[in-house]
Amino acid sequence: MTIDLRLEPNEMPLLMDLYHLTMAASFFEEGLNDTACFSMWVRRLPPSRGFLVLAGIERFLEALEEFRFDQAALEFFDSLKLFRKEFLDYLATLRFDGEVRSMPEGAIFFAEEPVLEVRGPLIVTQLFETLALNQIGMASLIASKAARCFVAARGRRLIDFGLRRSQGADAGLIAARSSYLAGFDGTASVLAGKRYNIPLFGTMAHSYIMAHESEREAFASFARNFPRLTTLLVDTYDTLRGVKNACIVARELAREGVRVQAVRLDSGDLLELSVAARRILDQEGLNNVSIFASGNLDEYKIDGLLRAGAPIDGFGVGSAMVTSSDLPCLDAVYKLVEYGGKPRVKCSIDKATLPGSKQVFRALNRDGKFCGDILALREESAQTIMQEFAPPPERVEPLLTIQMQQGRRILPRPSLNDARSLFLANLKALEPRYKDLTNPAVYPLKRSAALNAMVIEQRLWAQKQQS
Amino acid sequence: MTIDLRLEPNEMPLLMDLYHLTMAASFFEEGLNDTACFSMWVRRLPPSRGFLVLAGIERFLEALEEFRFDQAALEFFDSLKLFRKEFLDYLATLRFDGEVRSMPEGAIFFAEEPVLEVRGPLIVTQLFETLALNQIGMASLIASKAARCFVAARGRRLIDFGLRRSQGADAGLIAARSSYLAGFDGTASVLAGKRYNIPLFGTMAHSYIMAHESEREAFASFARNFPRLTTLLVDTYDTLRGVKNACIVARELAREGVRVQAVRLDSGDLLELSVAARRILDQEGLNNVSIFASGNLDEYKIDGLLRAGAPIDGFGVGSAMVTSSDLPCLDAVYKLVEYGGKPRVKCSIDKATLPGSKQVFRALNRDGKFCGDILALREESAQTIMQEFAPPPERVEPLLTIQMQQGRRILPRPSLNDARSLFLANLKALEPRYKDLTNPAVYPLKRSAALNAMVIEQRLWAQKQQS
Repeated sequence: MTIDLRLEPNEMPLLMDLYHLTMAASFFEEGLNDTACFSMWVRRLPPSRGFLVLAGIERFLEALEEFRFDQAALEFFDSLKLFRKEFLDYLATLRFDGEVRSMPEGAIFFAEEPVLEVRGPLIVTQLFETLALNQIGMASLIASKAARCFVAARGRRLIDFGLRRSQGADAGLIAARSSYLAGFDGTASVLAGKRYNIPLFGTMAHSYIMAHESEREAFASFARNFPRLTTLLVDTYDTLRGVKNACIVARELAREGVRVQAVRLDSGDLLELSVAARRILDQEGLNNVSIFASGNLDEYKIDGLLRAGAPIDGFGVGSAMVTSSDLPCLDAVYKLVEYGGKPRVKCSIDKATLPGSKQVFRALNRDGKFCGDILALREESAQTIMQEFAPPPERVEPLLTIQMQQGRRILPRPSLNDARSLFLANLKALEPRYKDLTNPAVYPLKRSAALNAMVIEQRLWAQKQQS
Repeated sequence: MTIDLRLEPNEMPLLMDLYHLTMAASFFEEGLNDTACFSMWVRRLPPSRGFLVLAGIERFLEALEEFRFDQAALEFFDSLKLFRKEFLDYLATLRFDGEVRSMPEGAIFFAEEPVLEVRGPLIVTQLFETLALNQIGMASLIASKAARCFVAARGRRLIDFGLRRSQGADAGLIAARSSYLAGFDGTASVLAGKRYNIPLFGTMAHSYIMAHESEREAFASFARNFPRLTTLLVDTYDTLRGVKNACIVARELAREGVRVQAVRLDSGDLLELSVAARRILDQEGLNNVSIFASGNLDEYKIDGLLRAGAPIDGFGVGSAMVTSSDLPCLDAVYKLVEYGGKPRVKCSIDKATLPGSKQVFRALNRDGKFCGDILALREESAQTIMQEFAPPPERVEPLLTIQMQQGRRILPRPSLNDARSLFLANLKALEPRYKDLTNPAVYPLKRSAALNAMVIEQRLWAQKQQS
């Protein structure tokens, strides 16, 4: 029996929609399998969001390397009574042997910019739509949300507390990884710590306090058992009395060489309580005991608390970050932009696409700050594009690079720490006005002249498709 | 190498927070391991939400049956340099041998009502907090959102289109299952179809049309390949010209015995376009070709379209449903309510808990409609509780039943179809005023006299805990 909680290895290629299979079958019957290029981008962002952070590319590439349908999958397809044996035999041998280009894991990007392009035979490349959107979409969504918390926290410690409220097991893992990538200091999730080597942090639950006959007894025994890792949760009963109890215990245990690191506030008015708790701690000579806060926090609340001067040294961020609660999914798409060497477009209302395989060029000024991007055709050169910026920038960088060729990775796998470093460098290079939490400036993005010309040509082509 | 996309079997017990392990270690050192009872409930709902639907219990029970830490897990714990060997040896033997009570999968429930109670030794039962909240929380969140779509759709076909925008792989699976449980007709997700035997549905993507040299050619070849499963996507270029092309193809192919089932609208003003499309189809004598709509739909938009008379026969619902976009996480908690035979509470501001192991009694009237619930202590009888309803109902049903004893399941596993039937029956028994999408009436829920008495007693107890 398959335990339902687990995603078995052979199930990964089945993360697709039925129509990917029926379209594959139809293409197979028609003999349509020329080289296609699919491009993934985010269509638009709400005005409160100034930038996005790319994540999930690594997982996607790993999945492509291992992509194959096993016997169980083929038997399931057969049971649907939709497919001919010849097609199922073909699926049994199907592998991805194409090319993947992408921006690097951890890169800052903007709406409308392709972050991924998959090129290869039509049948196999179209199968990856759902996998790409599900995995890269989710990982980037959370990295982008976590980056906002990182901006708001102004260097205070940030810990992912969200596994319990994340949307399933996979979401919890992705959120821990994406938030660490985007500047968080660690996670409470044991599995994420094990898998990704992310620093683990933890305090204590209310149940720990409640299982003891008194709050002080609970504090003291935990601190003795973890003399290097003690954050005391003070709000189980009355918060400020809890802080006072923490002080009593901290001073008593200091004699034994045990150090209480912090108190944790998890409810009530965090500004008021943190000010009062700081005062109590300082009066008791416990200036080195820090204050950690949690409880329905997001970037807006963290920003508000710190602007108001709350003496909080670290934040545990859960539900709002791990679900990106104000924007719980990205309007990301994976669309055919080229087939058989020719550009393709769709013209659906509000959902039109731009034709052709592309490159995103980013202009940097003398200080290394980002000063605008140009969306160009793949074959355009940085030199030509340089001319299209006004004023001309110090230099121009192409953001999409080849990751896989003939189905194999050609670049070394970046570690999570590499991606984190890249994110931190990118964030530094992004001017503060684009990082505003509520009303960010719109980052300059324009299309190259060659892309614009192709758009016009393609609109005419599309009209002919319906006659 | 562990492929990152996959959740390996031995990883399931690691879906916990670091503090569960450190608390376990501390309890172990103190010898605190009496019988505990943990209770899970949703603290509150926004005013637009009138009811919730329970799901995920099955997965949770499966995980508990198989719960054990393997060697790799223990080595990882050891690598953290936090735990003594004696504790790790203890973890190696740890199993769940306690009791689980819950409401049944598919039940309608309300905020503040316990849906799950886990009773057993303190150390092991506290470990399941994150697993329960993550899995039951997510599955119930989506079942509750999908139920709203089901109410709005008034019997029209509903298909889950959300895998691509769900928050990771597990979320996509959970969403397909939960939405089918809550009345949807099927899913587009191949993996969910395979795992749960949910009916699979699919149309075609824009890339299918774009890979062909003309829209009509694309329509005709797909229809020929799938003479029983053809829904033509008409909005790749101009929608109404697309409908006309679909008519031409449908009439041509009718001679070959191929039937076009539906056209699919995926962009633009769905009311206007569906009216125009219906007119065109009817004019062409294609009254039996139905109209299927998709594109950023949710319960509010479905309700609006149908109220306005849109001639739409079925809906594909994605992003908003699979992420529960207007409420992306439930304020669910898993709290200690009893330890060593004594009730326990926490008093945190806005987060106080009710003491004791509980039962939820539901009153039904003569027509079998739900007329109110009472939150009672576990040992109270239906007979006593009956007296506390005014006027007395026809009958009273206890909702929590024993699912596991001594770590083993004692009830037969309900199938997904059982859960779906229970949901449909529960939904029928819920008066329409509680199902309003924007301003539902508040379902009557009160506490038994015995529970109220215990609450008062426990407040006094809590004050003593801090002295």
